[in-house]
Amino acid sequence: MDKYNVGFIGLGTMGRPMASNIVKAGHNLVVHSRTRAKADSLLAQGAVWADSPAEVAHRSEVIITMLPDSPDVLQVATGENSILQGAKRGSVFVDMSTISPEVARKLAVECNRAGVEFLDAPVTGGEIGAIKGTLSIMVGGPIKTLEKVRPVLECVGNQITHMGDHGAGQTAKICNQIICGLNILACCEGLALAASAGLDLNTLLRAIQNGAAGSWMLSNLAPKMLEADWAPGFRIALQAKDLRLALETAEREKVPLVGTAVAHQLFKVAEAMGCGDKGTQVLFKIIRSLGCA
Amino acid sequence: MDKYNVGFIGLGTMGRPMASNIVKAGHNLVVHSRTRAKADSLLAQGAVWADSPAEVAHRSEVIITMLPDSPDVLQVATGENSILQGAKRGSVFVDMSTISPEVARKLAVECNRAGVEFLDAPVTGGEIGAIKGTLSIMVGGPIKTLEKVRPVLECVGNQITHMGDHGAGQTAKICNQIICGLNILACCEGLALAASAGLDLNTLLRAIQNGAAGSWMLSNLAPKMLEADWAPGFRIALQAKDLRLALETAEREKVPLVGTAVAHQLFKVAEAMGCGDKGTQVLFKIIRSLGCA
Repeated sequence: MDKYNVGFIGLGTMGRPMASNIVKAGHNLVVHSRTRAKADSLLAQGAVWADSPAEVAHRSEVIITMLPDSPDVLQVATGENSILQGAKRGSVFVDMSTISPEVARKLAVECNRAGVEFLDAPVTGGEIGAIKGTLSIMVGGPIKTLEKVRPVLECVGNQITHMGDHGAGQTAKICNQIICGLNILACCEGLALAASAGLDLNTLLRAIQNGAAGSWMLSNLAPKMLEADWAPGFRIALQAKDLRLALETAEREKVPLVGTAVAHQLFKVAEAMGCGDKGTQVLFKIIRSLGCA
Repeated sequence: MDKYNVGFIGLGTMGRPMASNIVKAGHNLVVHSRTRAKADSLLAQGAVWADSPAEVAHRSEVIITMLPDSPDVLQVATGENSILQGAKRGSVFVDMSTISPEVARKLAVECNRAGVEFLDAPVTGGEIGAIKGTLSIMVGGPIKTLEKVRPVLECVGNQITHMGDHGAGQTAKICNQIICGLNILACCEGLALAASAGLDLNTLLRAIQNGAAGSWMLSNLAPKMLEADWAPGFRIALQAKDLRLALETAEREKVPLVGTAVAHQLFKVAEAMGCGDKGTQVLFKIIRSLGCA
């Protein structure tokens, strides 16, 4: 196997296990994060700390970012001491965050000016997928760039799909998040009515989960809703952010997304009620509380 | 096996294959339908025609109805020449239609007065489940009544769940339909944005359908959306009706169902645009057309 010099910036719930899988696979890893303590376990695995994104980029052939939102990626990629200030010509910058497709296209242009290749490559599969290395990766950008970094991406995901030009990876991820968001709302509203009407929710789940109402969300989040287990998983604030990106993209594409707009507002209600850092399944509790039941 | 005298009223997309499975299992079957021609294949299988619901009931120990909506069931059960005018004391009336839980409870009272036992026992699993005899049946009413008719129900379904008292079967079905309706909308909005943004929809489906966005609807209806196959399946008009029932029930239970209300209106848009008899997947076409894309 070729050994790559990989840089990784953003060591949160998703980033840290992804980075860990890259170092486990035998690549050289340089890491940076706003909070240095988040790198401790990786440094123990053999990763090396760098004091800035620029320094990470300077030491790497492949630079990966896994950050919360578009402004974070723009700052780390193009701000002070940024990736593009340190990156060598011919290196590849892979942004695996979920951000705006438009920002991804803008980053591709900036990278091109600096002689750096760019891919947008957001993932689905959650923390479990990140830990197991079984993420699904949706890639936007030139296929030849994807082929260059494929051995590194294969450390973190087991399904790598080339979706099209720059931005197409982010657009695919956004469509995924629309479906996820509405499927969560579906579970919440179905179970909220059942609860208020006095049905036994576990009995109901058993009766319906293998039929036409079945979904990953019903199988994985509904049991947590019934146990009042609000630990993330995937956080309310991020789901709200992803639906905001969906609506911004829909605005640009002139597509009316009535259901998505409503789901977005309800996730924002959950955030406003102080549940931004809880798992998305807490929307069930919020909808129940709207009914004062 | 005990041979039952079973009556079956309502021989539509669901009712006919369900009745067929009952006669195939060796029970005596008496049938009635508004359109006599719909009984032809059953009569060829050995079923016997009756000219009215009263006559069906008079000849049966177990009377099953499978009709579109609450008024149809009320008419057939309590109107002129109705089930309750013909039914013998001690017979069991099982309504397998999807109707209002409140109407189900009212029917239970009327049946009790007439010395007839009642169950609400709506199903999920669609036309395929009806043909294969693999429906999931959600039952409301006394367990001892369910046990009496279980051998007949086992001819049409392979999962029979006792949900609670009269009406609880219908309430469970309504919760199921809330989840189904929002999961359909999820697929439509996710794919509509993807289509407008120029993604290859088949590639997208492969990338996301085994992840957190996965659902029965995404696996079964999204491929039909991509092929512009609008054949039912489950009809738009019935999905709209079921969400109307959901909202009526939510009104009674004082549960605000914001997403369900929006999904209901969008299915009504599809109905208003002349797609009431198309499969629910046609909502994709409607949402695409709203964007004029």
